[in-house]
Amino acid sequence: MSESDDQRLRERRAFLARAASVAALSGAAVGGAPRPASAIEARSDAHAFWGAHQAGIATPLQEHVYFATFDLTTTEREDVAQLLRAWTAAAARLTAGETAQPLQAGLQAVADTGHAESPTATYGRGQKFDVGIPAADSGEALDLKPARLSITFGFGVDLFSLKDGKDRFGLAAQRPEALVDLPRFPGDQLIAERTGGDLSIQACADDPQVAFHAVRQLARIAAAVTQIRWVQSGFASLPAPNQAPRNLMGFKDGTNNVSVADPHALAQYVWVGNEGPDWMRGGSYLVARRIRIALEHWDRMKLAFQEQTVGRQKYSNAALGEKSALKPLDLAATDKDGNPVIPENSHVRLAAAASNDGAQILRRPYSYNDGVNFTAERWPPWRQGMEYDAGLFFLAYQRDPRNGFIRIYEKMSRFDMLNQFVTHVGGGLFACPAGAMEGRYIGQSLFEAAARAT
Amino acid sequence: MSESDDQRLRERRAFLARAASVAALSGAAVGGAPRPASAIEARSDAHAFWGAHQAGIATPLQEHVYFATFDLTTTEREDVAQLLRAWTAAAARLTAGETAQPLQAGLQAVADTGHAESPTATYGRGQKFDVGIPAADSGEALDLKPARLSITFGFGVDLFSLKDGKDRFGLAAQRPEALVDLPRFPGDQLIAERTGGDLSIQACADDPQVAFHAVRQLARIAAAVTQIRWVQSGFASLPAPNQAPRNLMGFKDGTNNVSVADPHALAQYVWVGNEGPDWMRGGSYLVARRIRIALEHWDRMKLAFQEQTVGRQKYSNAALGEKSALKPLDLAATDKDGNPVIPENSHVRLAAAASNDGAQILRRPYSYNDGVNFTAERWPPWRQGMEYDAGLFFLAYQRDPRNGFIRIYEKMSRFDMLNQFVTHVGGGLFACPAGAMEGRYIGQSLFEAAARAT
Repeated sequence: MSESDDQRLRERRAFLARAASVAALSGAAVGGAPRPASAIEARSDAHAFWGAHQAGIATPLQEHVYFATFDLTTTEREDVAQLLRAWTAAAARLTAGETAQPLQAGLQAVADTGHAESPTATYGRGQKFDVGIPAADSGEALDLKPARLSITFGFGVDLFSLKDGKDRFGLAAQRPEALVDLPRFPGDQLIAERTGGDLSIQACADDPQVAFHAVRQLARIAAAVTQIRWVQSGFASLPAPNQAPRNLMGFKDGTNNVSVADPHALAQYVWVGNEGPDWMRGGSYLVARRIRIALEHWDRMKLAFQEQTVGRQKYSNAALGEKSALKPLDLAATDKDGNPVIPENSHVRLAAAASNDGAQILRRPYSYNDGVNFTAERWPPWRQGMEYDAGLFFLAYQRDPRNGFIRIYEKMSRFDMLNQFVTHVGGGLFACPAGAMEGRYIGQSLFEAAARAT
Repeated sequence: MSESDDQRLRERRAFLARAASVAALSGAAVGGAPRPASAIEARSDAHAFWGAHQAGIATPLQEHVYFATFDLTTTEREDVAQLLRAWTAAAARLTAGETAQPLQAGLQAVADTGHAESPTATYGRGQKFDVGIPAADSGEALDLKPARLSITFGFGVDLFSLKDGKDRFGLAAQRPEALVDLPRFPGDQLIAERTGGDLSIQACADDPQVAFHAVRQLARIAAAVTQIRWVQSGFASLPAPNQAPRNLMGFKDGTNNVSVADPHALAQYVWVGNEGPDWMRGGSYLVARRIRIALEHWDRMKLAFQEQTVGRQKYSNAALGEKSALKPLDLAATDKDGNPVIPENSHVRLAAAASNDGAQILRRPYSYNDGVNFTAERWPPWRQGMEYDAGLFFLAYQRDPRNGFIRIYEKMSRFDMLNQFVTHVGGGLFACPAGAMEGRYIGQSLFEAAARAT
């Protein structure tokens, strides 16, 4: 055994001991006695974490999202499993409105975060401060309610793929058929730094600080074995609970969505069934796309043109030709000249299940608003200047992306009149496994299957 | 008269006619019969727009802010006055929960936005759409409540300054003494693209879409005579109405703030009095700073070190050495060795009025969270990677910046232990004039004074 091998082994032993203590200290959530439920039940705006499905998928839309993906810097599958064990324990606490870890314990990270190397700081009259173990929780959510926080974990394609010809984590054989590489669609302008990732976390809450706080703690726990790849925050301003929000184009988003209150529709379109591997049954596939909208261009269009493009009336949300927003889309309706009332290349027609062999996806429609960039317009009057970096943070769940997003967007990416206003600049496809029952961790069945196979 | 002069005159005539119609069509808000108040009164979460002071200063903190500054592309003072007339009318509507302009009118912009040059678009079966006058309002706030929206206008130093030796708008003589050029402070890393601006708009609301919607409409109205310079969004997660939020460092922000419920304190520290020019009496000076916080660095610090740095206990918000958060700071307290309990270079000591000849400012403490950047750390363990571009969007109002922010921050920028974690990367100083009574527009007295002087 070489010296470096030896060192490596020692580091791994220390890591495993540490990781076990993370899970243990994060409460009895994983593999121990359940915590009393009273604290959770008392907080009516807390979502249950444990269950057959992960929360954050068929959960009524919360008003904010903070989404992050991570690249693994470790090469060991066991590290990934330990990370998910620690993340599960922390997520169960966070969604109940608690700190990620008990405050008394100090930060228990998966592997060493290197803080022991931090210097002793000296200030003022020569006081010295030992900067040893950092605080367990950054604290900005201490006084805030759970705010319906949900935390949803996903696995990227890269977790299962070969790197330099090597099966990175011994998971290639476990890759589900449905977890395909997304094709390149016409118009795609995906930026590598905003695309992909080994692991994803979607934190949704009615408070932006609660959502960010959750991801920040999970990133701290994982800092020694991961690196953040990209993040995106977003918001949805609901006129009333469960009412569809308007997106930044001013149109309602989600009118023809799969209903989260309809278990049959969810079973048909969202939850993976017996066709999937065991660990994905009850899970779902997430397609995320950061879609920049040229708001300045859109805002110069006439109302009637916007409505023809979308296929709906802007203010009332009724389909073109209808008086009420409650009337379903009538794609067969024609005007006196025989032309379709809802234009052939309008957004709602191309998105409709009837135009896509019945394909449906469950959208969680968030807007994002990331300030301004210096931009050279590609439309008249050809201005250059600061323009909004804002648009849609499109999150869609489905049972199988081949019969979901890919089927729908293949046609839409070529024909949708909206495309002249939007650009897909990032995103990814993530397999979000089934939920965990108390005592287990998210993704545990995947790692058990991999262990059995080797 | 040259051909270009002639053209210019024609354009200006068209502009003036257009601007007048903007104000007229934006309701009777400016110089006409008042609109019935019933619609406003019925919406209990609407702030009154008209009054001696602009709203958004001594207004209880709303949960979101969208801030923007604009550079004027026109060279005519009258254009600026017309813009403020149109902005005032639109702001009065927006804060009442209405669209910026009546939907029936189509967009009435100050000067021509160039949309007439847009081509006729052709799609699908050869349908043609006239893209003439755009929709009056982008529509994304149509179903939302006023959400306590406030809109606060400010004038940057550049509005009063010389450019290439020329008094840009004939306003140099009106520049208040208090509207100084902010000095360069130690550690300042101000980025030009995030700093300054001729005009500023602060839109605060309890809904991020309502705040952005407001600025977006005002920017549309102004597009032909301005260019956006920089924008910043932010949030404050209040545990309960009027309770101080925690910032992203996990500490309460605003405990020792000027109380917006105390008219005497406001008169002493916030509102400009007889010392100011007429148009600033009842107004206030805004210092904005975008302060990036190295959250990853901060998060690696031990709790006790964080508390020494800030001068407070993190979880309880009590001052160091105190049991209750209600106890005021005792800067004279010493420990058994005679050292101050609240360290000499701690943040709260340096910020306290007692350390600054009684200087106080009214802070509106928002956090910002703009994703991640690739960053090379300047502290151990010297990591490189994606790190949060997040921190504090510091907005502070004061009667005179020379006795406010400048006095306080001169010392703080040199000694505050917090400085190792924060970097000021942008901002500006803006003179926010008095409020407008119905029938007048924001800043009208300034333009009247300038007209009298010429």
